[in-house]
Amino acid sequence: MTEPPFVPAQGRDGVTGFVSIVGSGPGDPELLTLKAVARLRLADAVLYDDLSAGAILDHARPAAELVAVGKRAGRPSPKQAHVSRLLIDYAATGARVVRLKSGDPTVFGRLEEEISALTAAGVRFEVIPGVTSATAAAAAAAMPLTRRLTARRVQFITGHDTAGGLPSDLNLAALADPLAVTVVFMPKRHFPELADMLAAHGLPGDTPALLAENVSHTDQVLVRDTVAGLARRLGGARLETPALVLYGPLAEENND
Amino acid sequence: MTEPPFVPAQGRDGVTGFVSIVGSGPGDPELLTLKAVARLRLADAVLYDDLSAGAILDHARPAAELVAVGKRAGRPSPKQAHVSRLLIDYAATGARVVRLKSGDPTVFGRLEEEISALTAAGVRFEVIPGVTSATAAAAAAAMPLTRRLTARRVQFITGHDTAGGLPSDLNLAALADPLAVTVVFMPKRHFPELADMLAAHGLPGDTPALLAENVSHTDQVLVRDTVAGLARRLGGARLETPALVLYGPLAEENND
Repeated sequence: MTEPPFVPAQGRDGVTGFVSIVGSGPGDPELLTLKAVARLRLADAVLYDDLSAGAILDHARPAAELVAVGKRAGRPSPKQAHVSRLLIDYAATGARVVRLKSGDPTVFGRLEEEISALTAAGVRFEVIPGVTSATAAAAAAAMPLTRRLTARRVQFITGHDTAGGLPSDLNLAALADPLAVTVVFMPKRHFPELADMLAAHGLPGDTPALLAENVSHTDQVLVRDTVAGLARRLGGARLETPALVLYGPLAEENND
Repeated sequence: MTEPPFVPAQGRDGVTGFVSIVGSGPGDPELLTLKAVARLRLADAVLYDDLSAGAILDHARPAAELVAVGKRAGRPSPKQAHVSRLLIDYAATGARVVRLKSGDPTVFGRLEEEISALTAAGVRFEVIPGVTSATAAAAAAAMPLTRRLTARRVQFITGHDTAGGLPSDLNLAALADPLAVTVVFMPKRHFPELADMLAAHGLPGDTPALLAENVSHTDQVLVRDTVAGLARRLGGARLETPALVLYGPLAEENND
């Protein structure tokens, strides 16, 4: 394993710390990358989301400061500005900081806000990709996200916007395309509403769908259904666990 | 690191081997997952693509059989049916087989063909996700694929179909959506043609674009441009290196 190339680093304003924004993958500690492990082993401080906790943090040195900054059910999550402030403050002490984000930091990870804050503060940083839960869910179901002839486009959306409802700018024609596989991150309780809108745009109710909860964790649940069936199943239910919904021209599920 | 749960395994037809279809990530050996390394360390045979070669294979035991099955420039690639046959034949000897695929196997990885063949032959298998080159490119440019208000949909397509031309079923309305970030895998020499079609569907020529070649390799090249600019730059040129094009409401590039 190679050493990070930044010891000691010096930012534009004399800041000597360094922040590694690291994707920790979908949750299974074995889906960490070697580079994530290398950064954790050298970190002075680790700021982590809830989904990046547990055995993943065992790679950090005993002396490393571990700071939970994630959302927990029933408790307000720290404001994004507060997280950015923490990153800058730790870096300002000269620390090697790891910012662990579940999945891949470039996909629905609020990466831009943290990068902007670090850049404005003159703190040097790097972004290390991770396994996104979208491909982890597909792998768990032994089901490709793309198919050679029938699914040559795959798209990711979120099931809710910052206000908590369905995003108002959904491109429903793109999302009802029978030739694309769609992965809905954080479908929460809005999937039935989305399913109705997709049906109104021509997506057949019997389009295959997969609900994937706690992907790659020991309590992973995969439920194969149709879009209409999943909408009924999720009607009224609030998904408290991390979940994805995949729908479109899905291949048969092959895992026993 | 945990042991694979299958030693010894027994398939439906008495086949005792096991195939792990493993994403090796975009190329940087440090972007392998711990699970990929664990499978390589136990493998009796490793069937690998060109982009999964090099230091990645150093994790295999010296006694492991290493079989190149990937495409090389200027040489015909082994037929998919031949690769599937090899997987089945190795598994039939009782071997622990690793099928290394660059990037993530569920994204444009011909995963379905191999799964179908293994299932038909009664060979047990698993699919282990990897870091897709799409998120690795975004991470290298320190540029998220999604943005909280302006890019809530991200989509992946290929720049050519099995016949080598642009796919005939492109959803150009979805691809010209100014609110989505698009990642074109294997843009080859067809990007200028695609750019023309996008322009005809209303995508402004000054839409930001990023060409990412040899993502995560030591000879990685990132070129920031616009869709029209990149089309001019790539006009007539044939990209011989693995490359991606990203376009849409991209954030500023922040990496020095």
